[in-house]
Amino acid sequence: MHSFSKVIEGASFSPVSQTDIRYQPQQLICLDSSGYIARVIERTEADYATVKQAAQANDTLTTLQPGQYVLPGFIDLHIHAPQWPNAGLALDRPLNEWLDTYTFPLEAKYQDVDFAKTVYNNLVQELLANGTTTALYFGTIHNAANLALAKACIKYGQRGFIGKVAMDNPEQTPDYYQDASAQVAVDQTEQFIQQLNDLNQTTDLKQTPVITPRFVPSCTPASLQGLGDLARKYDLPVQSHCSESDWENGYALEHYHMRDADVLDQYGLLTDKAVMAHGTQLNEHDYELFSNQQVAIAHCPISNVYFGNAVLPVKRVLAHHIKTGLGTDISGGYSPSLYQNIRQAVMSSRLLQDGVDNQQSADQRGVVDSAISVKTAFYLATLGGAESLHLQTGKIAPGYLADLQVVSLQNDFHTETADNVFEKLMYQTTKNEIEQVYVRGKRVK
Amino acid sequence: MHSFSKVIEGASFSPVSQTDIRYQPQQLICLDSSGYIARVIERTEADYATVKQAAQANDTLTTLQPGQYVLPGFIDLHIHAPQWPNAGLALDRPLNEWLDTYTFPLEAKYQDVDFAKTVYNNLVQELLANGTTTALYFGTIHNAANLALAKACIKYGQRGFIGKVAMDNPEQTPDYYQDASAQVAVDQTEQFIQQLNDLNQTTDLKQTPVITPRFVPSCTPASLQGLGDLARKYDLPVQSHCSESDWENGYALEHYHMRDADVLDQYGLLTDKAVMAHGTQLNEHDYELFSNQQVAIAHCPISNVYFGNAVLPVKRVLAHHIKTGLGTDISGGYSPSLYQNIRQAVMSSRLLQDGVDNQQSADQRGVVDSAISVKTAFYLATLGGAESLHLQTGKIAPGYLADLQVVSLQNDFHTETADNVFEKLMYQTTKNEIEQVYVRGKRVK
Ligand SMILES: [Zn+2]
Ligand SMILES: [Zn+2]
Repeated sequence: MHSFSKVIEGASFSPVSQTDIRYQPQQLICLDSSGYIARVIERTEADYATVKQAAQANDTLTTLQPGQYVLPGFIDLHIHAPQWPNAGLALDRPLNEWLDTYTFPLEAKYQDVDFAKTVYNNLVQELLANGTTTALYFGTIHNAANLALAKACIKYGQRGFIGKVAMDNPEQTPDYYQDASAQVAVDQTEQFIQQLNDLNQTTDLKQTPVITPRFVPSCTPASLQGLGDLARKYDLPVQSHCSESDWENGYALEHYHMRDADVLDQYGLLTDKAVMAHGTQLNEHDYELFSNQQVAIAHCPISNVYFGNAVLPVKRVLAHHIKTGLGTDISGGYSPSLYQNIRQAVMSSRLLQDGVDNQQSADQRGVVDSAISVKTAFYLATLGGAESLHLQTGKIAPGYLADLQVVSLQNDFHTETADNVFEKLMYQTTKNEIEQVYVRGKRVK
Repeated sequence: MHSFSKVIEGASFSPVSQTDIRYQPQQLICLDSSGYIARVIERTEADYATVKQAAQANDTLTTLQPGQYVLPGFIDLHIHAPQWPNAGLALDRPLNEWLDTYTFPLEAKYQDVDFAKTVYNNLVQELLANGTTTALYFGTIHNAANLALAKACIKYGQRGFIGKVAMDNPEQTPDYYQDASAQVAVDQTEQFIQQLNDLNQTTDLKQTPVITPRFVPSCTPASLQGLGDLARKYDLPVQSHCSESDWENGYALEHYHMRDADVLDQYGLLTDKAVMAHGTQLNEHDYELFSNQQVAIAHCPISNVYFGNAVLPVKRVLAHHIKTGLGTDISGGYSPSLYQNIRQAVMSSRLLQDGVDNQQSADQRGVVDSAISVKTAFYLATLGGAESLHLQTGKIAPGYLADLQVVSLQNDFHTETADNVFEKLMYQTTKNEIEQVYVRGKRVK
């Protein structure tokens, strides 16, 4: 009989589609030594007892308590690691003031690697404690700091996708914090790819370098071109912001006489490995482009409230078969928790549907059929993010990476249906209720 | 020299107006034996050292750590205590299904006093742990359970305002959960007033009975009249819901050919001690009425996302000089935390200002000048609620009740301005960071 490296016995919730979940009241989730789920054994299967006994004998069985549930780990599809010290700050400022007065000065401090280590060690642990097992990070322009982030991910056991930020447009970046030229932006990006590849020789938990033009306004055409070339040369993921706000959307129209998405596309940056943050101001033309080229959107509902100038119509986006995941966008968003973003994704979609202005009549106030369910928001935080990053994770099923979280139900006063339990978990879970976290089968909380 | 019963030394934030706060980096907050703040001594005052030494000698000094801050305790101006077991449930259902399938069956269970005790003991502790020192509660129709709620408040040290819910309209309430007649609704309300007055003989922490017609649809004209008479006879606070949603707003128009607010007013229920929940669909006529009669609004931003059909224009409401506080509306809202509601109040106001639908042009999308700051949301959760309940609390100043919370700053990586610290506290504080809570000078967490 096969011996598993770890077996978790308990109840679980897993996404099965954009609108549905699967509840299992009792099962054995059996992990192999390479960190994948090898089997999921239902209570009714013939060898349930045998497998459980073997795991007990080998001391590899973890049995959950009543009121505990296994969920897939969450994927944060857009987060600025260096901005963690500013989470919750200055959100009432306009974007340009927020960048110039708060964000750029902070990011410039990561020239100091010790500062970077302090913040990044804290952040990675905080994200894991919140159930985030994979994160797609913007770093800074500083490769030593970016490497410190990769090392923090390895040290604490998180799967990181990490980008050296490229920003060489002197008109839209401050003197004290910019790439000196397009060539520098591109060369430093290539250097970081190699540094990360070297670092990966030392670990099983590979960190992935990501081509990262900050956004169209902060880059020159030359750096965008060079970064597009790198993306093709190394076949790497790309991340940026796209039509995040009226201002960003308008910038491309004014300076390139093109849509923001088309600018990125003409430089080869809208690949099927590209993840574009926000997209609140994308239009139907852009949706077609994203859909055809299999570009993903990182939906950041909390951040969008402050900087998006509208709500991303998630239901419309999904109807266009655009890959979509969920991001915290620290520190455009204040919360490191994807649970909070799941809630805000649902709430913002409801405000889009119902409308906000009571001076308009009910039938004119909102956009019909825009509300998404918590199940859809859960899909975004798990499978949707995994598909965006071409990862086999986000689901509790054989062949999937064992990125898991074990959470406890709060205020459980009476018998609940599975759907009721699931809704409570999505609405009530805080860091406190996340009891265990696994990445690639290894317990990291 | 005067001897204080307790002295807290540390930094503090306190509201001073609807838009401003006051930061004190170091002071002595001196409490008297009746639970009031007797003095606040600045670091520069002559007798600072003497008073501190005396407190040390008497073992009545509490000195905060760096990174800890004193704030006023929060006031939850609208919460349904019996619905706590359903927090986070069924929020995607329409209001009528939510009431009939989830809410009324749960509330009916409070005929069982043991069940009530279990839930209410848990809820009161949870609210205190979240920094809520005063709460305006809807109970159920059952006075034994309502008394259990009052006893839980006394036991754990929270200032409760508690209403026996009146709901006698057979067309809008289920057979298994309704007052048998208008007379029963009114008599039971009067009985509860007397029971609570008796209970108050046994404690210093008085609990206040509140006249509580559930809302216009669930009451008959006779019960509304009787409850209005009781409010006048005993000079007691009143609470209800008013123009919560398109449906509720329309109900009064259809059945009374009047505005919802005018119905309540004609029965004497819109007094200067009345607190009306939600008000998302109130119009200018209603604002005038509320303003003239000094009726307060309990703004419940999370709940409104699900059931309000629009965003309460808080800035407009405040401009009409209407008293306004903040409520969780458990379980129309999923969170027992007023911090979460502070955040959603800010976010919803921003979505009202910017608009939500990206298919409309930026200048047509929202309602200009609608965004409120976190300082205003903090005011709502403190002074705004206190004024609504005619309480001398919600502020750190001499003569105010010593309802306080001590919170720790999260992710404090670098020097901060006072405003930065305040914003972080509002955006990042969870139950974990609330280290101490005081009600009337007595430590309850
Ligand atoms: Zn971003
Ligand atoms: Zn309510």
